[in-house]
Amino acid sequence: MPVNYATPAPEALFPVAGVGLGVTEAGIRKANRRDLTVITLAEGSTVAGVFTANRFCAAPVQVCRSHLAAARDGAAGIRALVVNTGIANAGTGAPGLATANATCAALAEKLGVTAGQVLPFSTGVILEPLPVDRLVAGLPAAIADLKADNWHAAAHGIMTTDTVAKAASRRVVVDGKTVTLTGISKGAGMIRPNMATMLGFLATDAGIAQSLLEAVTKEAADQSFNCITVDGDTSTNDSFVVAATGQAGVAFVSGNEPGWAEVRTALIDVARELAQAIVRDGEGATKFMAVAVEGGKTREECRQVAYAVAHSPLVKTAFFASDPNLGRILAAVGYAGIADLDVDGIRVWLAAGDDTVLVAEHGGRAAAYREEDGARVMQSAEITVRIDLGRGSAAGTVWTCDFSYDYVKINADYRS
Amino acid sequence: MPVNYATPAPEALFPVAGVGLGVTEAGIRKANRRDLTVITLAEGSTVAGVFTANRFCAAPVQVCRSHLAAARDGAAGIRALVVNTGIANAGTGAPGLATANATCAALAEKLGVTAGQVLPFSTGVILEPLPVDRLVAGLPAAIADLKADNWHAAAHGIMTTDTVAKAASRRVVVDGKTVTLTGISKGAGMIRPNMATMLGFLATDAGIAQSLLEAVTKEAADQSFNCITVDGDTSTNDSFVVAATGQAGVAFVSGNEPGWAEVRTALIDVARELAQAIVRDGEGATKFMAVAVEGGKTREECRQVAYAVAHSPLVKTAFFASDPNLGRILAAVGYAGIADLDVDGIRVWLAAGDDTVLVAEHGGRAAAYREEDGARVMQSAEITVRIDLGRGSAAGTVWTCDFSYDYVKINADYRS
Repeated sequence: MPVNYATPAPEALFPVAGVGLGVTEAGIRKANRRDLTVITLAEGSTVAGVFTANRFCAAPVQVCRSHLAAARDGAAGIRALVVNTGIANAGTGAPGLATANATCAALAEKLGVTAGQVLPFSTGVILEPLPVDRLVAGLPAAIADLKADNWHAAAHGIMTTDTVAKAASRRVVVDGKTVTLTGISKGAGMIRPNMATMLGFLATDAGIAQSLLEAVTKEAADQSFNCITVDGDTSTNDSFVVAATGQAGVAFVSGNEPGWAEVRTALIDVARELAQAIVRDGEGATKFMAVAVEGGKTREECRQVAYAVAHSPLVKTAFFASDPNLGRILAAVGYAGIADLDVDGIRVWLAAGDDTVLVAEHGGRAAAYREEDGARVMQSAEITVRIDLGRGSAAGTVWTCDFSYDYVKINADYRS
Repeated sequence: MPVNYATPAPEALFPVAGVGLGVTEAGIRKANRRDLTVITLAEGSTVAGVFTANRFCAAPVQVCRSHLAAARDGAAGIRALVVNTGIANAGTGAPGLATANATCAALAEKLGVTAGQVLPFSTGVILEPLPVDRLVAGLPAAIADLKADNWHAAAHGIMTTDTVAKAASRRVVVDGKTVTLTGISKGAGMIRPNMATMLGFLATDAGIAQSLLEAVTKEAADQSFNCITVDGDTSTNDSFVVAATGQAGVAFVSGNEPGWAEVRTALIDVARELAQAIVRDGEGATKFMAVAVEGGKTREECRQVAYAVAHSPLVKTAFFASDPNLGRILAAVGYAGIADLDVDGIRVWLAAGDDTVLVAEHGGRAAAYREEDGARVMQSAEITVRIDLGRGSAAGTVWTCDFSYDYVKINADYRS
């Protein structure tokens, strides 16, 4: 059961002009499972993406990077995305690259574009070959299913071990015209037994020039998918791609145009909602935690501290137990790697909604702190750990979930 | 139940001439529990230590650093160690420092030395005040218990949530004289609900000059306590101290003397055995794993990769399940942060005893690898993950344990 998250209803996911989505059962790894999704983009769309930093990046990630670079350098623009679940096509060497390229070529041929105009995505079991024949055989059915109001189906089509489909949608009015932003994501913990990957796809019918789109894609990733952790394991296939079709009749080039601020904010909001949904559906999660660090010298050091707290198995199990175990939080702050950190200057609060409790200051427990106050806050399903480092004005937040018996159960199961 | 580890019998722990050990029940936090240990050192002993890198380091750690620095700078040498369990005296601010200093002063007065000649150690609950009155009241009984053949009792006296006492002993003959090295350690996972700390104490009756002792202490720590991880959480109190009494009539100053190589090796062996015992007794541990990385450019990058693998909850749960989940190991290698790592050059083996299986090469599963071979090795209680980075000649090893239901159970329990 995800923490305070339910898939939006189909009618709450607004179609994006210029985007078609089709889903089918291709039997990639299991029968009777929607496992193949095709997304088409109108001619003239711009596309940008950010991908895993894992050195063992999957074959489709390598192909995506290559096709996006070519499009940016003047080749014909991206016109389609193809996503399969079941097999991640990661750790598959040269044959894996060949199947990723063959996937692009097959879809391109059916859509009348070139292979370089297709971006491939795979998620599922690592180290096993992608059955490209079955994937290609499924393409006609996915293409036949293409329609604009199919985001709900596509959100289901990219799921692996997710317990709920993840999607978000916003509308912004710019200069009397409605701009739509809709996205889907998947991931539930980085990996269930060999099942990998966090994926995020977001489209808007605004027109966004390539360099502006690249900048806002990176910014949105930095404020969403790059701020979450379930278990600290970075997958081989993580991808976040944003497409702008320009069909709404509103175009942004420099970012100085009226309405850009609203569109940018909405885009980041959608990305953040999609990213947080992954944490809320984290493997075994019973709590959603924000670790908000402020008063740092740089955003990077704030995030470093936030990740140390968010990754600590001891902190995560304490949240599972609703145990306000302050020593664990302070210890994680202390080992986060800030060499000249003065622990006397640090303050720590636990908060749930409007209920905020100062728990630590001056290198130890706050004088007014009472255990029952901490315990009360920890009972909540949504908790903020706020940490003031007291040495600057930068801030950074990381979202995570707790660590339960079910995390071990899910991840200790044999691959099924 | 620790993995392949049992406390050595009392007679297997050789007395170290010049070292006395006394243990008593002081009722620091719970009654009927040996919780106070005093260790005395003959005049002329040299002492060196390494301590936690956590910025929230505990009051006794601060006092130890200060007293060791003073002794090195010419003050009277260290003559006693005092260790209490129950309360860690960490996160206790200025009052915590005062109680640590008061502890030293009380023991010093009873032994006829100065407070600066005493090193204090505390382990237990963080953020709570140390009941120094009870500790001081227990000192006479601990002193009355002082004897040379009391290592077994001392190993029990420093336990907190350890399920077994940890100790190791070696004898080396140098120039016809017997040199003895005996040590004890504690720790089982860094922290059980608010119970902190890994401690290691090692003594030898060899004479070792201060600077040589400092160097070998650091080297031994780097090859033992700094190579283990249960959950990645660095405690506030971690301490490893080595004392050399010189009572064996063998002295080392430069390290060029005959016999030093053997003594140095024995000292590192004892430290490694003490450190590995902590992992074998890791919270909920059912397997002991060595992650041995070779072929790196530097030892540091090898350790970085080894720690990424050893810290991955996904890898650790796979070992718990005896699931040869190679994708998780490769993914952890990939995200370890070696920016220019060429994954094509990496090879990975799983080994148990003489049974070695090549599982991955050329960026994916090894051609000859069969799942049943990996599964067979994973059934063992002692497993080596060997990783060749294929880019240099450095190596580094980390020891860890698996991640079981019991880890969550132990750490999600309320503090008791």
